[in-house]
Amino acid sequence: MSHSPSGQTTLVDVARRAGVSLATASRAINDSYGVSTKTRGRVLAAAEELAYVVSPEASRLAGGRTGRVGLVVPHIDRWFFGTLVAGAEGVLGDAGLDVLLFRVGDADDRRDFFHRLPARRKIDGLIVVGFPVLEAERERLDLLGVSIVSAGGQQEAYPYACVDDYEVGTIAVTHLLNLGHRRIAMIEAIDPDQPGWPTLAPRSAAYHDALDRAGIRSGPGLVCTVPWGGEAGADAMAQLLSRAEPPTAVYAHSDEIAVGAIRTARRAGLDVPGDISVVGIDDHPIAALTDLTTVAQPVRAIGERAAATLLEMIDGQHLPSSTTFPAKLVVRRSTAPPAVGARD
Amino acid sequence: MSHSPSGQTTLVDVARRAGVSLATASRAINDSYGVSTKTRGRVLAAAEELAYVVSPEASRLAGGRTGRVGLVVPHIDRWFFGTLVAGAEGVLGDAGLDVLLFRVGDADDRRDFFHRLPARRKIDGLIVVGFPVLEAERERLDLLGVSIVSAGGQQEAYPYACVDDYEVGTIAVTHLLNLGHRRIAMIEAIDPDQPGWPTLAPRSAAYHDALDRAGIRSGPGLVCTVPWGGEAGADAMAQLLSRAEPPTAVYAHSDEIAVGAIRTARRAGLDVPGDISVVGIDDHPIAALTDLTTVAQPVRAIGERAAATLLEMIDGQHLPSSTTFPAKLVVRRSTAPPAVGARD
Repeated sequence: MSHSPSGQTTLVDVARRAGVSLATASRAINDSYGVSTKTRGRVLAAAEELAYVVSPEASRLAGGRTGRVGLVVPHIDRWFFGTLVAGAEGVLGDAGLDVLLFRVGDADDRRDFFHRLPARRKIDGLIVVGFPVLEAERERLDLLGVSIVSAGGQQEAYPYACVDDYEVGTIAVTHLLNLGHRRIAMIEAIDPDQPGWPTLAPRSAAYHDALDRAGIRSGPGLVCTVPWGGEAGADAMAQLLSRAEPPTAVYAHSDEIAVGAIRTARRAGLDVPGDISVVGIDDHPIAALTDLTTVAQPVRAIGERAAATLLEMIDGQHLPSSTTFPAKLVVRRSTAPPAVGARD
Repeated sequence: MSHSPSGQTTLVDVARRAGVSLATASRAINDSYGVSTKTRGRVLAAAEELAYVVSPEASRLAGGRTGRVGLVVPHIDRWFFGTLVAGAEGVLGDAGLDVLLFRVGDADDRRDFFHRLPARRKIDGLIVVGFPVLEAERERLDLLGVSIVSAGGQQEAYPYACVDDYEVGTIAVTHLLNLGHRRIAMIEAIDPDQPGWPTLAPRSAAYHDALDRAGIRSGPGLVCTVPWGGEAGADAMAQLLSRAEPPTAVYAHSDEIAVGAIRTARRAGLDVPGDISVVGIDDHPIAALTDLTTVAQPVRAIGERAAATLLEMIDGQHLPSSTTFPAKLVVRRSTAPPAVGARD
């Protein structure tokens, strides 16, 4: 082994062993762009053979990059966020970048995160996952001077990757109308920790507009507003079933809400979809397992696209662009035409 | 504002504003231990007022700590791992540490991770989440010279936080035996990417031992081995229902497998639990939403404990200890005594 006199392997040793210039060895080790996969592989193999230990701090100071990207998420343990993070992590990991995970669950977390982050210059870019960045928060982020992408929600300030929530809602409600339903309820979701997030509004507007176009007035008794989650969906269905004229179909803002609603219907002795139809949004794995009709959104692909857009921005080679993914109806066994006696 | 002559706020300015020594200000800024929450808050407030920008690299070189902890997970988008990561992240975040997420989904990822990690000294500690570290991998980790904890699985080499999988399996099978079932099937799970992980073995051994103690021989036709996940559970149930003498009860290695199995039973026209009982493991949110009887493991608490143990090790103030959490039966509506005609 061609160690330097000190006994400690240096980058010069690695470059010599790999047969490349010192600059190329440095770029390969630091995951900078402009090094072919083959060359990078040769350099990394040489580094491994020689047990070369990189000081990431030294390489950062030299190269100007940290090799780290931050993902800011309101929740880690919910399917939507976990799946989106998995998609983004896959792309970032393949590009040799490390992922720093920042959770901002409630208002306190958010204040803490946005106040402390600019004091720590330690990332090359940031993906904001599924929550709105407020004006004051944007100013803090600007101090970072890094590229930022929004995933799972449209934000004017940043390039984004998401679905069109108005389209999603329209697909769900139109499906119920096409089956012949007229008394269609909506269980709409809010996140108490994320007021002002626009997801809610287009999904709800789509419901009201679709009923309007069909010449149906949606009574206020047919809309329940609840926090995200299955238990809340179960409670909402109990309210809907206590109406003098219960709905024959329910449009839920998420699959978990829908599955909770179905549990209540079944406990009340109703057949789904014989007595009442239920449609969700997401195509969460729970939907396939419980035969739930839903509107699928490609959450993993959204995460992958957000990461790819961020890599382009860090690389500085492309003008960043936003992507709106199509949603699609997945018909399973929770929706059917209304029972004959139930038709208006 | 008391800026230094250069116009750039220095740590001296921050210490003066906070009324503490330079050493204390440094420790507070660097999230070192030995600084009270109150003092740390005062220093951070002063740093914020003065728009003091920390160079994490400089502080690391001075303090010897990176302020970062790594979490290695085989999957991000599965409930068990997401929930465990959420628990660990909460504790680490509260301690002012950042979380680096490393996903090692398959054999290639693992080789890549374990080969590259030692070349980058960039974390203070590591939590291995839900997979076994092989001998050769342990040698690579040792090169890091950092504290390591295992979460969600028992490993001799490291302190761990987990449940006793033999106890978990015993609770589930004993519940079915106590209801009067004799033809009890098992759907056991393997992860093709993680051969040798011991979770499988104790959960399966518990089944065979419990039946042995009850004087029941478990025919090979009553055990199905499948990958983790709901669709595999659905397929396994189809196999079990095609036996000449189908089981009256099924013990599944996870709730997702159990819910998939129930879907197959219902599609086959069987009533659950009237015709067939199903019990899962986890207390995944899907269990409550689908009225599934299960054995609950406190996954979030396991993540929290693993993180707390790692903090103790990094701090060097305690001998690290392992924790085995109790599991408990949660009876819902997927288990009942066998139909009279079905009893042996």
